[in-house]
Amino acid sequence: MTALLAEPAMPSEFDLIQRFFTRPAANTVLGVGDDAALLQVSPGKMLAVSSDMLVAGRHFLPDADPYLLGHKTLAVNLSDLAAMGAKPRWATLALALPEVNETWLAAFSRGFFDLADRFAVSLVGGDTTRGPLNLCVTILGETDARALRRDAALVGDDIWVSGDLGGAALGLAHLTGEITLNAVAAAACLTRLHQPEPRVALGLALAQLPRVAAIDISDGLLADLGHILERSSVGAEIELIAVPAHSALHSLLPGSVLARRCLLAGGDDYELCFCAPVEDAPSVLAAAAAAGVAVHRIGRIGSNLGLRVIGQDGQQLQIQERGFDHFAN
Amino acid sequence: MTALLAEPAMPSEFDLIQRFFTRPAANTVLGVGDDAALLQVSPGKMLAVSSDMLVAGRHFLPDADPYLLGHKTLAVNLSDLAAMGAKPRWATLALALPEVNETWLAAFSRGFFDLADRFAVSLVGGDTTRGPLNLCVTILGETDARALRRDAALVGDDIWVSGDLGGAALGLAHLTGEITLNAVAAAACLTRLHQPEPRVALGLALAQLPRVAAIDISDGLLADLGHILERSSVGAEIELIAVPAHSALHSLLPGSVLARRCLLAGGDDYELCFCAPVEDAPSVLAAAAAAGVAVHRIGRIGSNLGLRVIGQDGQQLQIQERGFDHFAN
Repeated sequence: MTALLAEPAMPSEFDLIQRFFTRPAANTVLGVGDDAALLQVSPGKMLAVSSDMLVAGRHFLPDADPYLLGHKTLAVNLSDLAAMGAKPRWATLALALPEVNETWLAAFSRGFFDLADRFAVSLVGGDTTRGPLNLCVTILGETDARALRRDAALVGDDIWVSGDLGGAALGLAHLTGEITLNAVAAAACLTRLHQPEPRVALGLALAQLPRVAAIDISDGLLADLGHILERSSVGAEIELIAVPAHSALHSLLPGSVLARRCLLAGGDDYELCFCAPVEDAPSVLAAAAAAGVAVHRIGRIGSNLGLRVIGQDGQQLQIQERGFDHFAN
Repeated sequence: MTALLAEPAMPSEFDLIQRFFTRPAANTVLGVGDDAALLQVSPGKMLAVSSDMLVAGRHFLPDADPYLLGHKTLAVNLSDLAAMGAKPRWATLALALPEVNETWLAAFSRGFFDLADRFAVSLVGGDTTRGPLNLCVTILGETDARALRRDAALVGDDIWVSGDLGGAALGLAHLTGEITLNAVAAAACLTRLHQPEPRVALGLALAQLPRVAAIDISDGLLADLGHILERSSVGAEIELIAVPAHSALHSLLPGSVLARRCLLAGGDDYELCFCAPVEDAPSVLAAAAAAGVAVHRIGRIGSNLGLRVIGQDGQQLQIQERGFDHFAN
């Protein structure tokens, strides 16, 4: 597309794509370089599609490490497919860049492709343009009829969480100066914030179970579990003590408002929250073991709408913490 | 994903998606509202995928009419599928918005959906976030083995162009004050600039022919035909007089540098440039007639690499005009 102010041009857009984003694409009839990529979805599979946009100054600092940013840009999209129980296969990447910084682009593309290679994801298309730094990925995967939908939770289901929560949010609190962590805790939490690990293997294993509802925790446990409840027209009760906390939170809990906020409303952990029938608990544990991820039961789906958090004293907590919404501030 | 500075939030991201971008999605197993959409590609079809990003101040003025912007955001993506000969089916839309302006969003979504409805395209997912205005669409379509690839041109092929060229670029020159058009010409050219018509029916009809190489003209005829030549490892000669010019250019041609630049290097026309065997010319004309679009033969593919433009005197023109590149200025 033409810029508003056309000027004599050099073919650098194509150079950029060629140099940094063109690689032999497996499982692809036609990859980068035509008007569209051509892909062959496996027979009998459905296509799972999701898009996420990351904005400088909003989702990351403008001086963020480009390698880590390349990782995270793809990771948050892989996490969406994990939460569907879909196998990632292809991605497109659209970039708006304030300038052509080859060092930055080289590091960003390494971070992107290092993660893509781990999950056998092919970059099949995209767009580069000048503009305020903005990274938009569309991820494409395959699944069958047993995808992990948000609307599949039923009354009586166990509620589970993978890994542990709050580390990324605590890392963000450290970055913004709200708290000062020691070096070890800071490193651990910043890794959670900058290099989230999408739970793709767990999602795929859970999709083998008869019925699992799932979401990835990107905006905070309460907000994201809330989406399952809303879509499934059910309620839930969770036990605060059962919610697995990142180790750096342990010294703050219980009682710290910050720690509780990180645990219940901290985004960016990209763990899975999912619901499954009680009788399938052994299968859930086996799926988690096969995927190499810890899972914890944190509560139960009920018929009373709404989400209640029960404290150690058995009393319902008054919860002020809510998840992150992109237009709230 | 969490913002860098978390604040208490209202669920307005979900309100926005619900209010402006959620509609019953045909041909979709699961649409907006889960971690990913689930789509069923037709048996025997390949998936065609393309992403385009539009940036405020770069591809459109910040005060651009939001209805027309909604149209163009989808149209430029549909044009990519037209150039593949693919049938559009689904789209995702990621938006970064500087503020929540409901009037703007309502008009934008109307423009988007009015065009989507015409082509039976379902919006199946997306993302909204706060940030400098940025619109990113990924379009998904279906095609079979006879997609219109850029690398399919062979020596001896006719080179064709649909519709006429230069109107959008002349409209831009009017907008920027480089020229002042009369009211009739200005209206016609600005419609070309703001409301391009993707040549989907022509692309689908051409895909029924045995071998057609195609591209859509988004960066200018010379640049875009150049991509076919490069990918096909061939050269070409075109006749200036044969290139169909928008009616508003006629009063300027021949001789006007501006008119020639609009014709040969003007972007945003979103016509198709395509190459087909000479013996298929009757089939090309029949396909164009069926699609209701005029087509013109402008030259021929040759074995000498490079692109030559021949003037009315039979002499090769010295061409300064080049297409638009997104990092050249």
